[in-house]
Amino acid sequence: MKAVLQKEFGPAEALYVGAAPTPTPGPGQVLVQVVTTSVNRPDIVQREGNYPPPQGDSNVLGLEVAGTVADVGEGVDDLKGGERVMGLVGGGAYAEFAVAWAEHLMPVPDSMTWAEAACVCETYITAHLNLFQFPGLEDGQSALLHGGGGGVNTAAIHLCRALVPASPLYVTASEHKLERVAALGATHVIDYRANEFSEVIKELTQGRGVDVILDHIGAAYLASNLKSLATNGTLVLIGVMGGVKAELNLAQLMVRRQKIAGSVLRPRPPKEKGQIIAKFAAQVLNLLNDRRIVPLVDEIFPLEEVSRAHQLMESSGHFGKIVLQVDSGLDVH
Amino acid sequence: MKAVLQKEFGPAEALYVGAAPTPTPGPGQVLVQVVTTSVNRPDIVQREGNYPPPQGDSNVLGLEVAGTVADVGEGVDDLKGGERVMGLVGGGAYAEFAVAWAEHLMPVPDSMTWAEAACVCETYITAHLNLFQFPGLEDGQSALLHGGGGGVNTAAIHLCRALVPASPLYVTASEHKLERVAALGATHVIDYRANEFSEVIKELTQGRGVDVILDHIGAAYLASNLKSLATNGTLVLIGVMGGVKAELNLAQLMVRRQKIAGSVLRPRPPKEKGQIIAKFAAQVLNLLNDRRIVPLVDEIFPLEEVSRAHQLMESSGHFGKIVLQVDSGLDVH
Repeated sequence: MKAVLQKEFGPAEALYVGAAPTPTPGPGQVLVQVVTTSVNRPDIVQREGNYPPPQGDSNVLGLEVAGTVADVGEGVDDLKGGERVMGLVGGGAYAEFAVAWAEHLMPVPDSMTWAEAACVCETYITAHLNLFQFPGLEDGQSALLHGGGGGVNTAAIHLCRALVPASPLYVTASEHKLERVAALGATHVIDYRANEFSEVIKELTQGRGVDVILDHIGAAYLASNLKSLATNGTLVLIGVMGGVKAELNLAQLMVRRQKIAGSVLRPRPPKEKGQIIAKFAAQVLNLLNDRRIVPLVDEIFPLEEVSRAHQLMESSGHFGKIVLQVDSGLDVH
Repeated sequence: MKAVLQKEFGPAEALYVGAAPTPTPGPGQVLVQVVTTSVNRPDIVQREGNYPPPQGDSNVLGLEVAGTVADVGEGVDDLKGGERVMGLVGGGAYAEFAVAWAEHLMPVPDSMTWAEAACVCETYITAHLNLFQFPGLEDGQSALLHGGGGGVNTAAIHLCRALVPASPLYVTASEHKLERVAALGATHVIDYRANEFSEVIKELTQGRGVDVILDHIGAAYLASNLKSLATNGTLVLIGVMGGVKAELNLAQLMVRRQKIAGSVLRPRPPKEKGQIIAKFAAQVLNLLNDRRIVPLVDEIFPLEEVSRAHQLMESSGHFGKIVLQVDSGLDVH
């Protein structure tokens, strides 16, 4: 089969399409013929050699697939050949075929295109897990989201508007993305370069702060995030793009009854991931099918142009998801 | 009425019994004629001038009362004069009369002595809130408790043995208290002076760590606590006796999906505190009445010997709770 390969870890240009052995599904697993996949930021880190896949997973890049069932392993009775599925994989999605755990796949709603289906799993499940499964954002509670036009952030805004329509949403973005973020449903957008966001939050909330913060920056934002967090609020940390080590004031955390929760999806055991996906599917699949939530496709690249796709993500020039079309014979739009 | 007073913040010797105006219950409040109260560590910090009572609460020391209903404010219909009650107060328990919110009081189970009733509210509710209300310790999940013979820790061991009998309990204590902690129901006791506790936990759990840690030390223990915490585990911080500021490794917190939760009981709004007490009462009052949980009374001092009672707590010579007998006319044993 064809797959995206690299001779050594390095820049986007190191990626090329070559030949790799087609994987075989084990018990409980499914072989998916991949139609589309999408680029997620961890792919960049893995390409550079700093985010190895979990043991047992493919070394090929790619965390999510949309495609058809090509074969099933022992014990998988509920999926038939040719069914449209989308799901999470520990690795290997940048390829013609990928192996997924059956419980990590969902049906692709009839109303969705292949390009859209490639944009659901990694970002919407991450946002759902870290806003609605824990801490359990309730309608009317406020949230601060970082990350402008990124995949997780745009998914988080979509989910919040559908599930907690009364919640004030404060979203940071760079200046040229503010309008589009507002159009997605942010209540207030904050230009993070022009403002210290915690000052803006303080003013907008009359000093109260927000109930939930979803953050992928880490150390560089920790102090400002905790200043922006209300009493009883929760800061969920899903990335450390702004550094790893920071000083924490434990007395403040205690007196304000705040929580800091670290969270990451990929290394969780398959069973736990299956439970997370099941909760997501139960609450969100019908919203996708009804097109009350429509994943935001920024640009579609043929698999052969994977280097350009990575360059686009690295430039942060995208808004929404960057899709890779693996099967060039199908209309994915 | 008589009450414990101090002319200025300072050592235990600054405390004396003098005359103070009897408080009046407002709407929703109850005047309790105090029979017993007990010493909690925050009382020491308040005596020294570093822990002012929440706005609207008495400046007199004391966070919990056991006594009888003397008078009720407007809107309190379910409590009759003379009923035996125990409950939390924002301050003012070291006195002949104290005002409490009606929803912060519980009936004293018939089987309990007045001395025992003075030992329930602050410590058992703190332990219940921070182990069972959040994070929700389940039977079989493991916990690490610090604090040897202290009030919250002994209450935590009692609650765990009654509510999660299959949970491994690792408890740190000083050498001369290890045996008594083990007798209370700790699965493993750790002499924290002779050992780096995270090394012991690592060995005892084969590197897995524990699911929940209840900590009142703060900065000095943060790194060791996080080393001792399992993937998906929660560190609950209820004190900062070992310092306030510490470096946090956010990447580790994220990859191990760990939570740090700050928690404190006293400054919560009355309604929230009422909900916490209601959850506690629903799960624990019957265990107290059946004497499956019996609060550990270390020593009973007449109110007039309050300075000696504080000195005992400061020496850490106690094991369990230090009780103050306010009404000398009753048998409190």
